[in-house]
Amino acid sequence: MRLVSYGPIGCEQPGALVDDQIVPLEPWLAEFGVSGAGMNAVLGLFSVLRSDLEGYVAGSADQGIAVATTRLGPPVPRPPTLIVIGGNFHSHVQEMAGMNGGKPPIEPIIVPKPTTNLVGPTDDIGKPAVTSELDYEAEMAVVIGRSGRNITREQAMTHVAGYMNIQDMTARDLILPEGEPWMHLQMGRAKGFDGSSPCGPWLLTADEVPNPQDLEICMWVNDELRQKGSTSDMVVDIPGLVESVSAVFRLRPGDILITGTPAGVGAKMTPPRFLQPGDRIRMSITGLGETGNTIVAAS
Amino acid sequence: MRLVSYGPIGCEQPGALVDDQIVPLEPWLAEFGVSGAGMNAVLGLFSVLRSDLEGYVAGSADQGIAVATTRLGPPVPRPPTLIVIGGNFHSHVQEMAGMNGGKPPIEPIIVPKPTTNLVGPTDDIGKPAVTSELDYEAEMAVVIGRSGRNITREQAMTHVAGYMNIQDMTARDLILPEGEPWMHLQMGRAKGFDGSSPCGPWLLTADEVPNPQDLEICMWVNDELRQKGSTSDMVVDIPGLVESVSAVFRLRPGDILITGTPAGVGAKMTPPRFLQPGDRIRMSITGLGETGNTIVAAS
Repeated sequence: MRLVSYGPIGCEQPGALVDDQIVPLEPWLAEFGVSGAGMNAVLGLFSVLRSDLEGYVAGSADQGIAVATTRLGPPVPRPPTLIVIGGNFHSHVQEMAGMNGGKPPIEPIIVPKPTTNLVGPTDDIGKPAVTSELDYEAEMAVVIGRSGRNITREQAMTHVAGYMNIQDMTARDLILPEGEPWMHLQMGRAKGFDGSSPCGPWLLTADEVPNPQDLEICMWVNDELRQKGSTSDMVVDIPGLVESVSAVFRLRPGDILITGTPAGVGAKMTPPRFLQPGDRIRMSITGLGETGNTIVAAS
Repeated sequence: MRLVSYGPIGCEQPGALVDDQIVPLEPWLAEFGVSGAGMNAVLGLFSVLRSDLEGYVAGSADQGIAVATTRLGPPVPRPPTLIVIGGNFHSHVQEMAGMNGGKPPIEPIIVPKPTTNLVGPTDDIGKPAVTSELDYEAEMAVVIGRSGRNITREQAMTHVAGYMNIQDMTARDLILPEGEPWMHLQMGRAKGFDGSSPCGPWLLTADEVPNPQDLEICMWVNDELRQKGSTSDMVVDIPGLVESVSAVFRLRPGDILITGTPAGVGAKMTPPRFLQPGDRIRMSITGLGETGNTIVAAS
């Protein structure tokens, strides 16, 4: 099932995308008395009520909204927690060898981001005035369905609701400004700006992804291919990430783990090439559709 | 006004503390049609409806719940964003000179934490199995009332709802494990574990704090004074922090900025002394009451 959130910014409602029609899922939630609980509730209930939800969607196809007539927002607009895993693709570890000796992290690097950074798959992205080195990082998001703490890697996949495209956009010059004595601590500032996580257009539920470690990730700037990688290149795979993160804090329905980016970031081109207002970034992962966002000037 | 959230874990309701009685604020929210919106709504409405709220509380004192009969949770249980500012007290910058040359950061260091880390002022804190170097950091939290982006330092204080005690507990051995080539990136892991942010017992609204830059911070382990500092020691003051953070992302009602810790962390004692199950940590800031949490073993 392809799950979406649709409607104006900040007012998104959960839905299921069937062909080019969105079946609203708020009435389905209302059947269980959880009106207004949004996509987190859909994901939390999906693992225990999947056949009920599938039946509801199949029986409601004539009540669909044409997707072309509405805005798609982030598929999960208000996750409890949004985490990016640093240095988790071998190819990216290699291109960043200047800061790590070409070695992957000992443990997955957990970088929390403000959940308010999320924007939709076609929303404009404001280039913050505080950066002149805005960069993309195309990644696959793993979204949690079933809550858990200290989840073993054997059990991990039963906690995953699905997958989606996401960018972990990064203001490179904010990570370690010239002369900064507190090394590498500014990942939160560099990756935490409003709009840094465009995602979507849909979340594909895990039952429709035979092997999430064999998906192609592509990323274009103005139609020039910049990143082309595979989720098979992860240093720590999805079960390992769920195990490692849930050893630190409880995972909850809607939580988003961003699993790392392949090689090809603008900062490592010769010379480096950063995003400017007017640039269009576009990404796709096998089966997960495509995002397309325009960079605009922001304050 | 002293604002609290009371009730079982995960089910906290907003209230106002008058002497030893809690006046429930859910009925006040219901008057405006925002039932269930919790403390974020109280804080967001406080700046525009302060006299109305004060009148409601004064007129409802006979409906209070004795504070001794309930649990106090985090005063703001579900903030949109929880941020700690690294290296923001001169005395702590000095004690950490080994990692920064004794120099403060160029810009305030923004470290987002999962908002689910928050626990109440007397809740037990599980020492995660993944750390053997659990440490305290007593800090003052600034809580946002009025939303804003690119807030100037001149306007900053009009966006602050109030202040509270908070700990930014840190697993020191997770920041930079031996042999880790990705330096200093693991602040999210080290500061992001469940229970890492005990806070409260109340949020004191800003109108009752004449000078938030002149408050004493004290921190005890088993009644031994470990930290004693003043909010006058901040590298960047509260208006500067609001300005700097809001240049990166929009601040929203309920957002928590943790403003840095003074000298005296366990990691810098000779020899270092870390927290163990059975230890009791206690902190106070002038006018903000006192927390007291017991460390227990956790998985």
